[in-house]
Parts: sequence; structure tokens; C-alpha cells
Amino acid sequence: MNIPANKKKVSIVCFSGDFDKIIAAFTIATGAAATNREVTMFFTFWGLNALKKNKGRAATGNSIMAKAFNFLMGGLNNLPLSRLNFFGISPKLMGGMMKKHNVASLPELVEAAHALGIRIVACEMAMHILEVSKSDMIEEVQDVAGVATFLNESEDAHIIFI
Amino acid sequence: MNIPANKKKVSIVCFSGDFDKIIAAFTIATGAAATNREVTMFFTFWGLNALKKNKGRAATGNSIMAKAFNFLMGGLNNLPLSRLNFFGISPKLMGGMMKKHNVASLPELVEAAHALGIRIVACEMAMHILEVSKSDMIEEVQDVAGVATFLNESEDAHIIFI
Amino acid sequence: MNIPANKKKVSIVCFSGDFDKIIAAFTIATGAAATNREVTMFFTFWGLNALKKNKGRAATGNSIMAKAFNFLMGGLNNLPLSRLNFFGISPKLMGGMMKKHNVASLPELVEAAHALGIRIVACEMAMHILEVSKSDMIEEVQDVAGVATFLNESEDAHIIFI
Repeated sequence: MNIPANKKKVSIVCFSGDFDKIIAAFTIATGAAATNREVTMFFTFWGLNALKKNKGRAATGNSIMAKAFNFLMGGLNNLPLSRLNFFGISPKLMGGMMKKHNVASLPELVEAAHALGIRIVACEMAMHILEVSKSDMIEEVQDVAGVATFLNESEDAHIIFI
Repeated sequence: MNIPANKKKVSIVCFSGDFDKIIAAFTIATGAAATNREVTMFFTFWGLNALKKNKGRAATGNSIMAKAFNFLMGGLNNLPLSRLNFFGISPKLMGGMMKKHNVASLPELVEAAHALGIRIVACEMAMHILEVSKSDMIEEVQDVAGVATFLNESEDAHIIFI
Repeated sequence: MNIPANKKKVSIVCFSGDFDKIIAAFTIATGAAATNREVTMFFTFWGLNALKKNKGRAATGNSIMAKAFNFLMGGLNNLPLSRLNFFGISPKLMGGMMKKHNVASLPELVEAAHALGIRIVACEMAMHILEVSKSDMIEEVQDVAGVATFLNESEDAHIIFI
């Protein structure tokens, strides 16, 4: 089944920047890649926060507004839990519970995704609105693309919106 | 590729009524329609708020309960941000940031969707529960349908739940 | 169209444990099954709460952390609304509005799903992290599986992430 032309495809739109949903996105992505699918992850809106080089809070952007949003949203280490967040304490507790049970952490999942050849794409429009440039993002980001390009490349793929 | 029978289909379930998610739904929908897909948007639950004629808060419905829910949920101009909402200030700031970067606004996206021939369908059950009638909704709503009808029409489509 | 080999498939990832989203998941699932699709529901993360035997709050798990999370998350009768939750009052009001309009309640939907032959699968990793064992869950749960197994079984299915 290794012939690229027949390879099953999975495309994941990572819209949410919640810690738990990003974990879910990378778990599905790496699971799919490990079972020989061609996987693309398209990060948009809040999801962009998972790709920022500054993993903590940083006032990225030019305008005051973009700076404020970027600061408030934070980065990979500040992602909130979609429920029971308790001002950011819960993602840390959840991380601890995952570690205790030998489940891969978020940075490990990002690394695994890259190693498995998952294509990581950042949404052009979201970068534009939030004034995040390619140099503000981790080097695992392979491409910047618009939604039309993403949809065209996902023509034969399962599209999963997270 | 313009032969209708072979036209790729995309069906979007607009469940969420969050400002950012509705923007995402319309962006994907118009992007798909612009690249020659047949697109259906099925609005249910909170998503219905984006279709109400009263774009502000209005006590639509007959029972006190339905009126209260409809009032609290608001309409197209009151959609909250899924995160960092700050009592409704953020969607306005985000709208400003979008305008500044020449990104289409939500009303513009609704108009574009209509112009591109995207089929806008309202969920019968959600209308029933929330006591929203067809006359309470914008005229761009072409159809009212149940989930089974929607699924049947989406048999060969990508289904995206937002 | 009743030949199993050609039967259309729908796979739903129930990630969210919100009352309204679980209702949506079961509504789509039963609608799909009723129109002759083969449906699998894969419950992970917060979604697991809908499958717990203890439908109220209970400190399931061994470690203090797992107990705390399970208690705070609650069960089928404590699922919050994704918006306007008001400390759990709204899901009850919404349930009342559904009953008034003869819409199936959540326990009825779970029962219908089972009767329609929908396969209910619990996510192994989420059970592991939250220390929920198979005996903690309702008997309608037919299987425990990892994400790779789920993806393999969903190869020809619509995948819907809720």
C-alpha cells in the first residue's frame, strides 16, 4: 500500500488552540501517519498559537491590538484546557497525569509529527489578521497557505475540523 | 470539471455560534465554492443565531424559556468569541483587526456565500426547540431540513462539523 | 443498498463532553443509522463522561488527581452546556425545552443508539489518563480501542469530530 498515488490522506484543520484539542489533533495525526496515511495539519486562528516560536506569552505583531491578542493567547506552554481550565492550572495537572501514564507530551507529539513526515501548514489569513510572520513560528512549519490551496490539496482526504 | 455529476461536495454542519467559528465556516464554504465545489451549510443549535433576522438581541419564540435563550444568545452582531470574549468586546476588536487587513467581514461572507450559490439550510429540530420560525430568519435561508435529509444529501460530500 | 460491503459508514469522534454537543453527536449518529449507515462512535477525553456508569459526580480513579478530574467533570446528568451554562442550570432548562417539544432526551438517545446497532467505543488512552476502567462505564460500551484501530476501521467512513 506504499504507492503514493493510492495512499489514504487525512487533513486536519487545527482551529482551536485548546491544550486538549491540540493534543487530540496531534494524536490523530501521528496515529494516522504511523498507519501509513499522508497527513496535513492546517493551523488557523487560535491553533496558530501552538506553532509560535515563543512558547510562553509574547507580544508578537506590530499593532497594539495584535500584540495584545498574541500576548493574551500565549504559546505552546500556555494553551488553556477547553474546560475546567482554572486560570491555566489544569493543563499543567493534565500534563502531569499524561506523563505519569507514559503518554506523549505536547512537545513530543510535535516532534513525532515532524519525524513522521506530517506536513504542518500555517493559515495565511490568520497570520495576516494576528500579524504573525513565518519567522515568528517554529521551523517545523513547512508552508504558509490559504484555505483554497488547503482544500485543493485535501480533495481526496478525510477533512477533520478540530 | 464543471459537470455537476462529478462536482466535489462539501457539507458543513454549523453547530457553534461563536463569531470566530462562524467566520471559519463561511471562509471554508466560500473558499470551497470559489474552487468549484457544491457547498451546503447546515445550521443547528447555536449556529442558528447567525441566521436570525434580528441581528441584535431579541426575545424570539413563544415560551418564556425560548425567549430567554434567544435573547441571551443574540444574533449575528452579538456572536461571542470562543475564547477571550471579555463580555463581547473582543469580537468587535477582532472585527476591527479583520477590517484593517482587508479580510471580509461576517455580513460580507454571508452575502458572498449567497452569491456563490452556497445552499444555506436551517435545522428543523433546533428551530423547534428554540422556537425559531422560518420568518424569523434571513431570506438567504433556502431550506429547513432534518438531520436525516442533510445526511442523505451529503452522501458523497466531505462533512465538516464546526 | 443493504449489502454490508457497500454500506456507507459514519465515524464520530466524541471528544467534547458538552451536553449540547453530545446531543448533536447522538442525533447525527442515530439519524445516520436510521438511514442505513454503519455508525461508530469513539468517545475520548471529555466525551468519556457520557459513558460513565455513575451519571452524577463521582470520584472515579485511583490517584487524587484522576479522582478530582472525574468528580469535577461529572457524568451524563452533569454535562455542561458549551455556552450559557450558568453553573449547570441551563442544561436542565434545555432538557425541559427538548421534552416540551417531544425531542428525545440524552438517555433516550443513548438507548436508541444501542438499539440501532451503533458501535460505541471508548478511547484507551483517555481511559488510561483519567483512570477510568471498563467496569466504570455503561454496558452499552462495546469496545475499548486506540486511535490507530479507530482510524483503520474508519478508512472508508465519513469522520466527524465533535
